[in-house]
Amino acid sequence: MMKKLLFLLTLIIIISKVAYGQSVHDLGTDSAHFQIPDIPGYYTLKCDFHMHTVFSDGVVWPHIRVDEAIGEGLDAISITDHVEYHRKEVEDNHMVPYEIAKKHAEDKDLILILGGEISASRDHFNALFLKNTDEPALRDTLPAKRIAAANKQEAFVFWNHPGWTAKYKDGNCPRNEEFIELMKAGQIKGIEVCNGDGYWEGAHDLVQEFDLTLIGNSDIHGVSAYQYQPDKHRTITLVFAREKTVEGVREALLNHRTAIYQGDHLIGPEDLLKPLFFESLDIETEYREGTSLARMTITNNSDFDFMCENKSLFKFYNGIHFFTIKAHAKTTIIVKTLEQLSGFSLDLLVHNVLVAPGKSMELAITVEDL
Amino acid sequence: MMKKLLFLLTLIIIISKVAYGQSVHDLGTDSAHFQIPDIPGYYTLKCDFHMHTVFSDGVVWPHIRVDEAIGEGLDAISITDHVEYHRKEVEDNHMVPYEIAKKHAEDKDLILILGGEISASRDHFNALFLKNTDEPALRDTLPAKRIAAANKQEAFVFWNHPGWTAKYKDGNCPRNEEFIELMKAGQIKGIEVCNGDGYWEGAHDLVQEFDLTLIGNSDIHGVSAYQYQPDKHRTITLVFAREKTVEGVREALLNHRTAIYQGDHLIGPEDLLKPLFFESLDIETEYREGTSLARMTITNNSDFDFMCENKSLFKFYNGIHFFTIKAHAKTTIIVKTLEQLSGFSLDLLVHNVLVAPGKSMELAITVEDL
Amino acid sequence: MMKKLLFLLTLIIIISKVAYGQSVHDLGTDSAHFQIPDIPGYYTLKCDFHMHTVFSDGVVWPHIRVDEAIGEGLDAISITDHVEYHRKEVEDNHMVPYEIAKKHAEDKDLILILGGEISASRDHFNALFLKNTDEPALRDTLPAKRIAAANKQEAFVFWNHPGWTAKYKDGNCPRNEEFIELMKAGQIKGIEVCNGDGYWEGAHDLVQEFDLTLIGNSDIHGVSAYQYQPDKHRTITLVFAREKTVEGVREALLNHRTAIYQGDHLIGPEDLLKPLFFESLDIETEYREGTSLARMTITNNSDFDFMCENKSLFKFYNGIHFFTIKAHAKTTIIVKTLEQLSGFSLDLLVHNVLVAPGKSMELAITVEDL
Amino acid sequence: MMKKLLFLLTLIIIISKVAYGQSVHDLGTDSAHFQIPDIPGYYTLKCDFHMHTVFSDGVVWPHIRVDEAIGEGLDAISITDHVEYHRKEVEDNHMVPYEIAKKHAEDKDLILILGGEISASRDHFNALFLKNTDEPALRDTLPAKRIAAANKQEAFVFWNHPGWTAKYKDGNCPRNEEFIELMKAGQIKGIEVCNGDGYWEGAHDLVQEFDLTLIGNSDIHGVSAYQYQPDKHRTITLVFAREKTVEGVREALLNHRTAIYQGDHLIGPEDLLKPLFFESLDIETEYREGTSLARMTITNNSDFDFMCENKSLFKFYNGIHFFTIKAHAKTTIIVKTLEQLSGFSLDLLVHNVLVAPGKSMELAITVEDL
Repeated sequence: MMKKLLFLLTLIIIISKVAYGQSVHDLGTDSAHFQIPDIPGYYTLKCDFHMHTVFSDGVVWPHIRVDEAIGEGLDAISITDHVEYHRKEVEDNHMVPYEIAKKHAEDKDLILILGGEISASRDHFNALFLKNTDEPALRDTLPAKRIAAANKQEAFVFWNHPGWTAKYKDGNCPRNEEFIELMKAGQIKGIEVCNGDGYWEGAHDLVQEFDLTLIGNSDIHGVSAYQYQPDKHRTITLVFAREKTVEGVREALLNHRTAIYQGDHLIGPEDLLKPLFFESLDIETEYREGTSLARMTITNNSDFDFMCENKSLFKFYNGIHFFTIKAHAKTTIIVKTLEQLSGFSLDLLVHNVLVAPGKSMELAITVEDL
Repeated sequence: MMKKLLFLLTLIIIISKVAYGQSVHDLGTDSAHFQIPDIPGYYTLKCDFHMHTVFSDGVVWPHIRVDEAIGEGLDAISITDHVEYHRKEVEDNHMVPYEIAKKHAEDKDLILILGGEISASRDHFNALFLKNTDEPALRDTLPAKRIAAANKQEAFVFWNHPGWTAKYKDGNCPRNEEFIELMKAGQIKGIEVCNGDGYWEGAHDLVQEFDLTLIGNSDIHGVSAYQYQPDKHRTITLVFAREKTVEGVREALLNHRTAIYQGDHLIGPEDLLKPLFFESLDIETEYREGTSLARMTITNNSDFDFMCENKSLFKFYNGIHFFTIKAHAKTTIIVKTLEQLSGFSLDLLVHNVLVAPGKSMELAITVEDL
Repeated sequence: MMKKLLFLLTLIIIISKVAYGQSVHDLGTDSAHFQIPDIPGYYTLKCDFHMHTVFSDGVVWPHIRVDEAIGEGLDAISITDHVEYHRKEVEDNHMVPYEIAKKHAEDKDLILILGGEISASRDHFNALFLKNTDEPALRDTLPAKRIAAANKQEAFVFWNHPGWTAKYKDGNCPRNEEFIELMKAGQIKGIEVCNGDGYWEGAHDLVQEFDLTLIGNSDIHGVSAYQYQPDKHRTITLVFAREKTVEGVREALLNHRTAIYQGDHLIGPEDLLKPLFFESLDIETEYREGTSLARMTITNNSDFDFMCENKSLFKFYNGIHFFTIKAHAKTTIIVKTLEQLSGFSLDLLVHNVLVAPGKSMELAITVEDL
Repeated sequence: MMKKLLFLLTLIIIISKVAYGQSVHDLGTDSAHFQIPDIPGYYTLKCDFHMHTVFSDGVVWPHIRVDEAIGEGLDAISITDHVEYHRKEVEDNHMVPYEIAKKHAEDKDLILILGGEISASRDHFNALFLKNTDEPALRDTLPAKRIAAANKQEAFVFWNHPGWTAKYKDGNCPRNEEFIELMKAGQIKGIEVCNGDGYWEGAHDLVQEFDLTLIGNSDIHGVSAYQYQPDKHRTITLVFAREKTVEGVREALLNHRTAIYQGDHLIGPEDLLKPLFFESLDIETEYREGTSLARMTITNNSDFDFMCENKSLFKFYNGIHFFTIKAHAKTTIIVKTLEQLSGFSLDLLVHNVLVAPGKSMELAITVEDL
């Protein structure tokens, strides 16, 4: 009789006269896969565009990258071994990791994108949708030339970990004029606003200023299970695509339809994250019998915790203006509407969803036909 | 992304050439209720016929006994406060706890049996199906007279905790000649072979010798949640009844169709526990491709762990003759049948199912049409 | 080898070049008792001043209230059965529950306060430190007379669940002029700002306006284990006392040194909750090697989650201004101080600590000698 | 207030008159490392002598094998890539995986043994303590010549997975006369009685008959965290060594001081497993106040569950003759000794400890000075 005590809870509470504030009930989840809804008009593809294998400085065979991606519920990955580096014990052919992974993924449901990391000493870039990762021009000593070579292959180039503390001691993304020119010229189309656990506000500024595609990746070199604690996840790019294909990913990247899921946080444009918020939730509201207390029950079927602040005129019955809409749980809040209304609007600031540098998402939950 | 690591396990195991021994996969369970199957011809009712409230030396109102029973998934209970004792602060009317409980259980799915504990100084008895627990003759100083008074009310009388160490220092059930006469005379029809965590082999002997009904109860005085650790359960009587009614319970008790579920163990007659074993399990067997290794997958949907020893000629592939069929899990064993057979029989000794004093249940799992 | 995967995490991460944002590591806790630190000059006593037994409309014997309090780590309780009501099956003497509990708690570490609930039809009050709960004047039909009778016994009287929705349909605490007069006269000295899961902002306003003692209680009638889900706790009053005695509690109540711990929230005056915040935490800060990123590691040994918003000029490295200092965990945040400083101040808004109606606690974590 | 309910259990059980049968209390464990005690005179080294990397048909870089071993608490490993096979994309030099691992393990507490798998098409052998795994003679087409070449290097050679079902359809270890001659000649000194989840009784017979060293290994090709479920462990060889060095391992292997830990089971000679049993346990016995019930409390600090059958004249108070001494738990059994004795002996059959093919370990727990 497992979990006995948990169920004794269903015992009738003999005399119940108190009102309820916020309460949360865990819904459980049957899967370890990322659970993130699609939004109207687009599939939400879970993507990681930056990872390594033994064919550069990683420690796993390409098989593992494929298996991990499927095990974690990713839709698309790119194995991006350094094109200018290989371990002396493995073959010097930068097409090999892709070919091995391709064969291993053959009958599996995973989009595999040919890519590579084209690194100068200090500044690294990833090129996706390359045609030949072994092309020598990708290993030119000048960053601009490498980037040009990648663009010649019609690749999508983005700047990696632009405030990498190993290189930039203040942890800030520099305003590199050379790269800004390349952004303007469309040679650099994206930027890792997040890489692993790092976030660079300066990179986020560049996204806004030069209309770049924002990208977040794991940059994993080791084994995912050993790198991330249980209940943690790798940093990924959410790509809002019209179709689940390589072309679908490319079209979405070119049109900046991406967001980042890092730690507890979402980072991306409001017009994508607002629908993602609402698609994650199922909201039901009703007045408590004969009172002006509106009980709002929010069922969250996504992996996201939404950390919300009440910015409405209407206060909550528990006196606190802050609440979390927990992932895979049912959260109940009670709104004091002062009198019974046929509808009302609840203005929220969602602290952990960043729609611009330093700016959290604001939105309103509209309740009608009460 | 909860339980991420758990699910990474589904990653394909790249090269798999080893054979498998016993393996166990947890199925989980959605309920804290007792999960015990019916057997052909009978409902398996989960019953507790010994418990107290504030109306004798317990510490809860009768409501709690009802709520706990429902919360734990019991089918029938009897509140058996001592008929000769009441706390000075509560009413001296032994019908009251039943009446309060009855009202509280009115629209609930629980069989409530009027009963009482009729205790002499050293030896206690419970009487079920009484008509009036407040009848003074039930408080006679002589045990035999009390028992007679209960029988006059057509009650079912059983001897409680017959080797209670507070009274019997060797922890053995005494062969009390007076009580044996009453057993022979049908005045004592049952005996608590188990009470709480106690078991009395001498009582079990008496069951066999005088064809008594074996009974196991909690004798709870406090709160169930505080008395039992999580994942533990109160000791109960399994009553194999033709119908889920007071009469159904009585008919089964009179016909000795009971077993006891105490800790990890089942105690009772083979003709009831063998069907209970097979109804708890779903067994599928097939040969591993091209080998003479028969893989038997046993799905156990009950609360019972069955601790089994292989007594067959056929050995297990993992070399061990012992295995546990875990509750709410899928257990796989591999039987070496030496050549492919169309059927075979697996002889088992189920150590934790006691069908007579000192005797575990033996049975055979028969596999056909392989 | 339990928890194997958890520990594989200690495997060296082969190549680590990314920076870290907020991270949280669970510290575990060895006890289910409330874990709440003392503050300089005072013991922080965990108290519940409102609960019932079978001697009014509760369903447990007084023993259970004592055992539960000890099991949950409370320091002081008052059993406050209704003085004007008793079940017909139990003795009509309102001193009895206290006497039973007193005897049961005799050699236990629990402060037991004689108290009672003196209820008019709609408005209920609790009186603590009564001398005789059976005094008939406490059952007068007029609230003011009851309250006067309690004050005559030098009791500490507080208003219970003042916006109880069974009586006040808008869920608001009314501005009852009669009671306000009694507050001014010192006849009502406290108010339940919280009762169970209810919070009344109007009551909180009255605390501020008339310098009342704020109180939060469970008002439990049933069994604690059945009433609260695992990982939930009853609503309690934190009493900041000079000594762990009945007198110590009284002195603190008379001097308004209380706060409420309800759900995830703390409610009370800033001068008590600020020290409680800092006593709960152990904060260490150091610059990451050669960078201007200050890594602040906050060890939280208390039961409280603190939900914090960064209000400083200095931003966090992960770009998010919101973080939770989780109970019994180690939380790491990284502050971008732009250049290496010998000290700095981190201004926070702690959303779930309410220091006045609608007002969360603001404070600064000061870092020195870096 | 985490785990609240767990601790409410400490509430005093108001009236306790029942006796106790077997009970088990979890002690928890702080580490995912194998927790296995030393035995008098020897260190118990946890070893895995069979595993692969990308340098044969595995999918990880040697680093991972080292990190996993340390993460799981192994004392010694040998990376045993196939000496006759290498992936075309990696260097054809069989010394390389050892050299890479050696460098990675340099300042870590792990014994690394140079070894290789020298496979004929059907029968595979591992050679430990080789001097040059790249020696061409190890790749001879004739098994006997390979084995001779390994012996020439003073290697310790053992036969791998001798009943591998991919080759032997009845899952039995064949009595290969050629190999038996090599055993007699000391050219084959050990045999994998267990590999992964497989066990071969025929191999166990050969151990007994030709005085071989019994070996159990994982033969892992993938990532440990993905291959084994949580709470499962890889199959390992326990090596009872005089010192924690390569030489210590060799000396113990040459003197047959090994046992196997596979799944729940231990396999090995009685003279090693009996001390291991007693070193795992701390046993305390005392009579219950004034009774002849001897309460034996067994604290098990090891990872092993011991599944025990009582073979004594003295019965257990709970009437069941079977009990499990659970890993990292405190197990209490109550022995009915009929009268108070100054000492007694409890004869047990430990079902899941195999001291010979088909034979479980028998032993006696001796209790003195009661």
